[in-house]
Amino acid sequence: MHNPQTTPALPAALSRRHLLVGSASALATVGLSTWSSGAAAQAKPLPAAFSWKDASSVIVHSGTTIETKRSAFGTSVITPTNQLYIRNNLPTPDASIVANRDAWEISIEGVGKPRTVTLRELKTMGLETVAMVLQCSGNGRAFFPSKPSGTPWTVGAAGCVVWSGVPVRAVAEALGGLERGMRFLTGTGGEKLPAGLDPKSIIVERSVPVSAMGDALLAWEMNGEPIPLAHGGPLRLIVPGYTGVNNIKYIKRLAFTLQETDAKIMSHGYRISPPGGKGEPNQPSVQEMTVKSWINFPAPDSAPLQQSRAQIAGVAFGGMHAIKRVEVSIDGGKNWKEARLVGPDLGKYAWRQFVLDARLTTGQHVLVSRATDAWGNVQPEQRMENAAGYNNTSWADHAVTVNVG
Amino acid sequence: MHNPQTTPALPAALSRRHLLVGSASALATVGLSTWSSGAAAQAKPLPAAFSWKDASSVIVHSGTTIETKRSAFGTSVITPTNQLYIRNNLPTPDASIVANRDAWEISIEGVGKPRTVTLRELKTMGLETVAMVLQCSGNGRAFFPSKPSGTPWTVGAAGCVVWSGVPVRAVAEALGGLERGMRFLTGTGGEKLPAGLDPKSIIVERSVPVSAMGDALLAWEMNGEPIPLAHGGPLRLIVPGYTGVNNIKYIKRLAFTLQETDAKIMSHGYRISPPGGKGEPNQPSVQEMTVKSWINFPAPDSAPLQQSRAQIAGVAFGGMHAIKRVEVSIDGGKNWKEARLVGPDLGKYAWRQFVLDARLTTGQHVLVSRATDAWGNVQPEQRMENAAGYNNTSWADHAVTVNVG
Repeated sequence: MHNPQTTPALPAALSRRHLLVGSASALATVGLSTWSSGAAAQAKPLPAAFSWKDASSVIVHSGTTIETKRSAFGTSVITPTNQLYIRNNLPTPDASIVANRDAWEISIEGVGKPRTVTLRELKTMGLETVAMVLQCSGNGRAFFPSKPSGTPWTVGAAGCVVWSGVPVRAVAEALGGLERGMRFLTGTGGEKLPAGLDPKSIIVERSVPVSAMGDALLAWEMNGEPIPLAHGGPLRLIVPGYTGVNNIKYIKRLAFTLQETDAKIMSHGYRISPPGGKGEPNQPSVQEMTVKSWINFPAPDSAPLQQSRAQIAGVAFGGMHAIKRVEVSIDGGKNWKEARLVGPDLGKYAWRQFVLDARLTTGQHVLVSRATDAWGNVQPEQRMENAAGYNNTSWADHAVTVNVG
Repeated sequence: MHNPQTTPALPAALSRRHLLVGSASALATVGLSTWSSGAAAQAKPLPAAFSWKDASSVIVHSGTTIETKRSAFGTSVITPTNQLYIRNNLPTPDASIVANRDAWEISIEGVGKPRTVTLRELKTMGLETVAMVLQCSGNGRAFFPSKPSGTPWTVGAAGCVVWSGVPVRAVAEALGGLERGMRFLTGTGGEKLPAGLDPKSIIVERSVPVSAMGDALLAWEMNGEPIPLAHGGPLRLIVPGYTGVNNIKYIKRLAFTLQETDAKIMSHGYRISPPGGKGEPNQPSVQEMTVKSWINFPAPDSAPLQQSRAQIAGVAFGGMHAIKRVEVSIDGGKNWKEARLVGPDLGKYAWRQFVLDARLTTGQHVLVSRATDAWGNVQPEQRMENAAGYNNTSWADHAVTVNVG
């Protein structure tokens, strides 16, 4: 299906992507080291802690980073847990923390009556369920020509997941409400920190605006099961619409605070820095997701299509807003047709599935999708360049090249 | 949490159910053999073909019947595939039939241009995704005092599942449309039939009214993955709103027909027969589901509640219609409060999750739920008695008794 040779007739913006979907051997020839290292990673076995993942559906980048294969995304909206990506900032805690889930304790601070609450008690305080796109801040990094350091994710550091837990606002209410003037919701992960290092330099502690509390959960269930350890169980902060790192795993402290935390992962990590620059506190933090879509079927690595008729399908999400429309082009973005949104609508934080019933003539086609959210924001053609390769929503970067034989 | 002693103050309709949620040893004492055999079945290991199921979430009744534990149902709407019930009428086919899924062939008949179509070609004809309650016709059979033969399911022969496939109507259109006068959609399973028996006596072949075609799919994906062999992969007929048996696994023939099939599973099986009677073709066939709900949390087998505040949660579905309202009673049906519908609404064929934030005083409470669908149909208090124990929607039968200490 894929052809590693560039075709001069393709728009310039797409020729690199065209290469990226090519075969690993051809790419190695033209020197795309990021991609070829990614291809090599496909052969890595699953780390022991994540041996329950479906090996055939994922790409293992490292012991703490696993990506869903683009070809493995189905068309059923929800991403199965055994295919969902993993990106952990610290080593996964010992499984003993999920041996007695209900006994897990979290300290609630910055409220009228601050105290420690068990998961058992949280379960009495309220219940809400939200479907949400969980996406790593660096998803799409592999498409940056600058080859930023970090995992070279293509599309698979994302999934649509259902979470159940207690609304953060219900917990705050039960504990006397927010202290006056608190502007941030700060979550602290319960990972064991390596000895000999300044905790602030390593701890997973992030702040989001207190306005994000509206739909935030302290969640104990994911896709119908207790949250697996790998995904933050027994308790995870869920901030719908915010990138993965803001959804604190193993959360042991939830504080309403006057200031953002000064933990390094907040002050210097996950910042939108100029190309070549470093993260600084005055730069925008990677938090809210914006409108994005991509095509999963036909997959870049599938066999040549044998029929001219094809159902071109993919996913689209708005981050903070619902999806209004998705357009699909089969000529690399010159002409567009509106795709059909199909399947259940799981709410504004979930992704929608789109389909275009297309006739493809014999030869090569560059398929791209472009989403528009309910506020009228349109997915951009170009990525926003930044040092660490965050927030790639470029439709051109996410193109799929197919051959019809 | 459960107390095997009946309490005279309970309504008569509930006392038996109250017993049913009691401990197995106590039940054996009072002679409820069906339940005690069910309890014994919990110790059975998973059959080899279904070893990938989550053993801690299911009850193994036999080599072809596995039920989801009531306590395992989460609050995330979708039922995980590794927890979903299994009920196969014939032995599961050999895994070779899913070795090359796209090569699977199905004969389409009763259309203008009847022919055999491969799964590969079906995937070009259209795409739709539907979330649907899949429920065995006999779910709730364990609550019939008449102890009908058949698997003694309580609530766990049901799940809410997402299917992807091609609309049956799109396939019919692509093949020249229905032949004139066809009144039924007849599906035939591809199981290998035992030698020496009349095929009609054993084949899984069912007919549904052609009107059910509107939302029917030929599905190849379930919950985001190719349909597992155990659940009918590579291809299954999905008739939303109809009980499990009407959703033909391994479908090899889809025919628009003038008459219902005369296969025994249709003519004499799955009929609503009077108590003590046998299935006959003139009796109603078990097809469309009707409004039903039950409470999953607190679960009947959970520990005594230590707090007076509880989130009483469960699922409600209308079969063919959306859920309009769910009421919950904490006194066995004397007084009712409207529950809150929470979480994503996956469409009229899916179940909705409901929650009541309740204060429970110290002592024993009988929790029941009662759903109303969008057409105003109300879940009945009493089951409709029938010989085989089908279609149990009684809210009284589905009560949960809890103790608050």
